[in-house]
Amino acid sequence: MIYIHEVMNVHIVDLIEKKKRGGELTEEEIGYIVSGFTDGSIPDYQMSALLMAIVFRGMTGPETTALTMAMAHSGDMVDLSALGPHTADKHSTGGVGDKTSLVLCPMVAACGGKMAKMSGRGLGHTGGTIDKLESFPGFSVSMSGERFLEIADTVGFVIAGQSANLAPADKKMYALRDVTATVNAIPLIVSSIMSKKLASGARTIVLDVKTGSGAFMETEEQAFDLAREMVSVGRNAGRNMAAVVTDMDQPLGFAVGNALEVKEAIAVLRGENVPDLKELCMVLGSQILVRSGLAPDEIEARARLTESIESGAALKKLAEMVSAQGGDSAAVFDTSLLPAAPVQRSVKAPRDGFVTAMEARDIGLVSMHLGGGRASKEDEIDLGVGVVLRAKVNDPVRAGQELAVIHAADEASAAAAEEELLRCYTFGDGPVDRPPFIRGVVC
Amino acid sequence: MIYIHEVMNVHIVDLIEKKKRGGELTEEEIGYIVSGFTDGSIPDYQMSALLMAIVFRGMTGPETTALTMAMAHSGDMVDLSALGPHTADKHSTGGVGDKTSLVLCPMVAACGGKMAKMSGRGLGHTGGTIDKLESFPGFSVSMSGERFLEIADTVGFVIAGQSANLAPADKKMYALRDVTATVNAIPLIVSSIMSKKLASGARTIVLDVKTGSGAFMETEEQAFDLAREMVSVGRNAGRNMAAVVTDMDQPLGFAVGNALEVKEAIAVLRGENVPDLKELCMVLGSQILVRSGLAPDEIEARARLTESIESGAALKKLAEMVSAQGGDSAAVFDTSLLPAAPVQRSVKAPRDGFVTAMEARDIGLVSMHLGGGRASKEDEIDLGVGVVLRAKVNDPVRAGQELAVIHAADEASAAAAEEELLRCYTFGDGPVDRPPFIRGVVC
Repeated sequence: MIYIHEVMNVHIVDLIEKKKRGGELTEEEIGYIVSGFTDGSIPDYQMSALLMAIVFRGMTGPETTALTMAMAHSGDMVDLSALGPHTADKHSTGGVGDKTSLVLCPMVAACGGKMAKMSGRGLGHTGGTIDKLESFPGFSVSMSGERFLEIADTVGFVIAGQSANLAPADKKMYALRDVTATVNAIPLIVSSIMSKKLASGARTIVLDVKTGSGAFMETEEQAFDLAREMVSVGRNAGRNMAAVVTDMDQPLGFAVGNALEVKEAIAVLRGENVPDLKELCMVLGSQILVRSGLAPDEIEARARLTESIESGAALKKLAEMVSAQGGDSAAVFDTSLLPAAPVQRSVKAPRDGFVTAMEARDIGLVSMHLGGGRASKEDEIDLGVGVVLRAKVNDPVRAGQELAVIHAADEASAAAAEEELLRCYTFGDGPVDRPPFIRGVVC
Repeated sequence: MIYIHEVMNVHIVDLIEKKKRGGELTEEEIGYIVSGFTDGSIPDYQMSALLMAIVFRGMTGPETTALTMAMAHSGDMVDLSALGPHTADKHSTGGVGDKTSLVLCPMVAACGGKMAKMSGRGLGHTGGTIDKLESFPGFSVSMSGERFLEIADTVGFVIAGQSANLAPADKKMYALRDVTATVNAIPLIVSSIMSKKLASGARTIVLDVKTGSGAFMETEEQAFDLAREMVSVGRNAGRNMAAVVTDMDQPLGFAVGNALEVKEAIAVLRGENVPDLKELCMVLGSQILVRSGLAPDEIEARARLTESIESGAALKKLAEMVSAQGGDSAAVFDTSLLPAAPVQRSVKAPRDGFVTAMEARDIGLVSMHLGGGRASKEDEIDLGVGVVLRAKVNDPVRAGQELAVIHAADEASAAAAEEELLRCYTFGDGPVDRPPFIRGVVC
């Protein structure tokens, strides 16, 4: 893409006006806007007015693609071509208890895929994937570009911290959207997510779009719109694409909290069945294998993924990767070596009946208040704390039965968390109708 | 009004979000926004996002009133109570050839009104009223507050430069709107105009809202909406209000250019009939006299205004005011003392027929290009240059007949202006249907 704002006789006010009136911005105009915003020649106050106009007017498919491409090209474009044709990446729109990458990446690596992932630190209810991985003593997410490619090549997956120069336009734009009530607009969400994924270089990209009370896209319709737009933009950029829309009305799996989630991921890799988590990894994994050409169809893909667990190959991949990134891989086989909280408090069901609803977002906040997440960038995360659920929606319970176990730094925070957690549960006299966990696949 | 942002536990992002979703901001919230924006604690990028949300969502009557009041109270509130109950002010939304104040103020003063006006300098096709007045040698618009009140009291009218601390919120907000494509939204236009008028202190305010190709509000419907909103806000603030919607499809009167417009104003005060200009002054003047209690009804008001001209009282008032503000009042009676351009160039009609349309805005630009207006704040105005029209819409013309006279600084600019001016005229074989010049009165 060539930025031609030096020669374009156009003024940013005219472009804001055009979008305000519902016009379609050209690829050149969008390139001018993104490069001008990134280099500071277009000030924040003009960009925020344009962003608000986009909130109201939306963007066409070509506009969203042009915006995403311009943002991707605002910084480094990672070249993964040395890893061959089976490079893959996965992105989740974020949910509570989401440890999918920790399970999925080793499974895909064991099946021949190359997942060279860059990941950000989490802000909010729990840490991000790299915070969780730091549960392994000595684990590091900083490495040279050469080492990054080398681990991806030899192990089959690597998870590094996000390069400072990956889609800098997105970094700057997201900070502005956050303080101007312009976060919630599909073309802006699409371009934010997809610019980073495109810049990260994988040939195949799978997306997990969450819907429900714990998710960014509260309605299923919005989630499918977002999924379709992202798949379309990725395909326009020449990538193999698939998106899965999944439920986030309750946490994914049972563990919420950094080291607790690592333990649950390892349990799945050891063959334990955590139904929604395992099914999600099977669906995402089979999309990666099929789209990237590693498996001819989904049946074959699922068989290989199952074999990767049953053979212990996926678990071994996790250990290799932890080791390659400087961590103590013994903890993969003996999870008592992972950080643990000193206080465990059992939360009992207050009545007989069924769990009929759980506020996923609020359960995430329980973990954050225990010290497991960051309220601001500078906060330290307590890797050991969190919540392990024993009952989820439509499970029958008896009064006094264990509903969850709180892992806390001290008794006081455990007691506060217990009260908070009980407010997250709703009980009824019988089970409730629920849509399936996997709402659909867009590809 | 009390600004309670120190104690309000509210974040500006939530207010932007509220307006974005179509909610109604409270008086307290609007007070918080305006004072925060004025003191810089709310940054431009948040304000511009809010302004764009207002462009799309509009504002309710109570919101517009609260915004206007908060902006008026962001600086000095001029106290004109010492001048008695008949203080009046007039505002025009701006048009080409608009010299109304120069005629209206002396007429109203001659009838007992007190017009203590503050006026800005013009930016665009011609100067503002105070630029025009500077055609009188020695005339000054700078004076103390005491002197301002004294002239208003003894002469009946005074026109000073705008105080630096008059509605500073508007000054700052307008500058931001100008560069973020958020100028064109009725609640924002209302609050911008009315905050300054309310802060200026007159008990009676009349508004001239222009519509047509040379005006800000291109459609009559928009112009009436704007007029109604301004009247409503002014009335909510306890002022006597009226608004007139008038045609700006062609220039007002015949003269466009600073000293040329002063000469035309003086001609009307001497009894010459410049149809649209004189009628506008009669309508605005009678609204002032009736609303402020100086005349019992419009018939009586018009009779007194007519008498103010026929008796020479209004012309005398102009001379008194020019003199009081340090100018040479001899020029009121001998307009050859006013600045004049060295070159006059006659523009001839290219064909037989009728004038069927004139691009008012473009005729304003002819004057500006001759040196009669400012493209940027620092530009010097050439007071003598401009255009005097000889034929307006529906006037019959013969090929070679004089269509206009260009007053220019030199032959080259006169020749360029001639070409430009001819492009502003459209000719046809017969007269065209036109709505009346005065489209309506809102009161």
